[in-house]
Amino acid sequence: MVRVGVLLSGCGVFDGSEIHEAVLTLLALDRAGAEIVCMAPNMDQMHVVNHFTNEEIKGQSRNVLTESARIARGTIQDIAKVKVGDLDALIIPGGFGAAKNLCTFAVDGPGCRVQPEVRRLVSEMAEAHKPIGAICIAPAVLAAVLGAKKPIVTIGTDRQTAGALESMGAVHQQCPVDQAIVDSQRNLVTTPAYMLGPSIKDIAKGIEDLVQKVLGLVKG
Amino acid sequence: MVRVGVLLSGCGVFDGSEIHEAVLTLLALDRAGAEIVCMAPNMDQMHVVNHFTNEEIKGQSRNVLTESARIARGTIQDIAKVKVGDLDALIIPGGFGAAKNLCTFAVDGPGCRVQPEVRRLVSEMAEAHKPIGAICIAPAVLAAVLGAKKPIVTIGTDRQTAGALESMGAVHQQCPVDQAIVDSQRNLVTTPAYMLGPSIKDIAKGIEDLVQKVLGLVKG
Repeated sequence: MVRVGVLLSGCGVFDGSEIHEAVLTLLALDRAGAEIVCMAPNMDQMHVVNHFTNEEIKGQSRNVLTESARIARGTIQDIAKVKVGDLDALIIPGGFGAAKNLCTFAVDGPGCRVQPEVRRLVSEMAEAHKPIGAICIAPAVLAAVLGAKKPIVTIGTDRQTAGALESMGAVHQQCPVDQAIVDSQRNLVTTPAYMLGPSIKDIAKGIEDLVQKVLGLVKG
Repeated sequence: MVRVGVLLSGCGVFDGSEIHEAVLTLLALDRAGAEIVCMAPNMDQMHVVNHFTNEEIKGQSRNVLTESARIARGTIQDIAKVKVGDLDALIIPGGFGAAKNLCTFAVDGPGCRVQPEVRRLVSEMAEAHKPIGAICIAPAVLAAVLGAKKPIVTIGTDRQTAGALESMGAVHQQCPVDQAIVDSQRNLVTTPAYMLGPSIKDIAKGIEDLVQKVLGLVKG
């Protein structure tokens, strides 16, 4: 059975993992017969956003691992305990959590820091030439960790965000929402999802394509 | 365009809406071309559960509408503002939130109270003979509000829970996870989802069936 890590970053599009993207990733993996290994860093979120008003809730803190466990229904591990040998592939759903908690791209742009355990696992996966999928804004994590390898990724069509990824070393390629692109040299698969949208039925197609392509790289 | 309300109860299986069930409901509705109207009651959750440890977090409070907005990506209304005339159908995903926040079935059993706006909308939908779908444990809400009408519902195969629903007036019918049952006299559709599981690919089938049957009752 192929074991695929799903790296979560909280629970909610504005301060954590984008919930639809994460759930559709789990659905496609389960349908393909993969074993799913959910994980998240054990750290405080950058901040907490009220998703009804879209305003920051001052003075409140939430833990990324604890909140991610909501999406994983409790079956989740601290990423610090996950070794590269435990996984055949890794997928990172989007949501601002990928750019606020897994790295600081949302606030620091191309000069962002990457959470140490995220950097370790992504680097080790790349060194082992195991496939990594990244959805929506999560390709920013790949650019931040693997920029020196000139990874080919997509975040859709937004020129400004694409430019920021390119200034970290990535090569940006446009991609419609219903597809995923493959960097076959570096074993990376990316899809724009809610960077383009507009709705859940649209992003579902791209995420299904991404999961199929990630699993194809494992089997290949 | 058919307008379908999705009544959420927070964000996370142990204290709110079951996230997979809610997202798969949105996916099936969007694919069917329905207009989705997410809603939740504007009230504090019964409590907050750490989904990593499955223990209550004492002294913390979260608002049901605010947390539900995470699943709805911010596009959600206070149920108090939703009129029966705004909707062609209503679907209630499961999760403990349906039995802790929408009603108190999880703690009070058959003697449970129902949140007033939930009681109002469910009653009005039933009076107007508009279809209502309920997933997982959410049929408890139907039993609590509509028990006098002897609604036919399923929560899967669990005899004890089924007995509690029956003592509120419901007629329980067993149903496998990949299907939904229809009470055509009362226009109700129910599916067991994670009352049976075991995994997301399994519950997806039952939820797709439920959404198709709810929409079929609208069109019929």
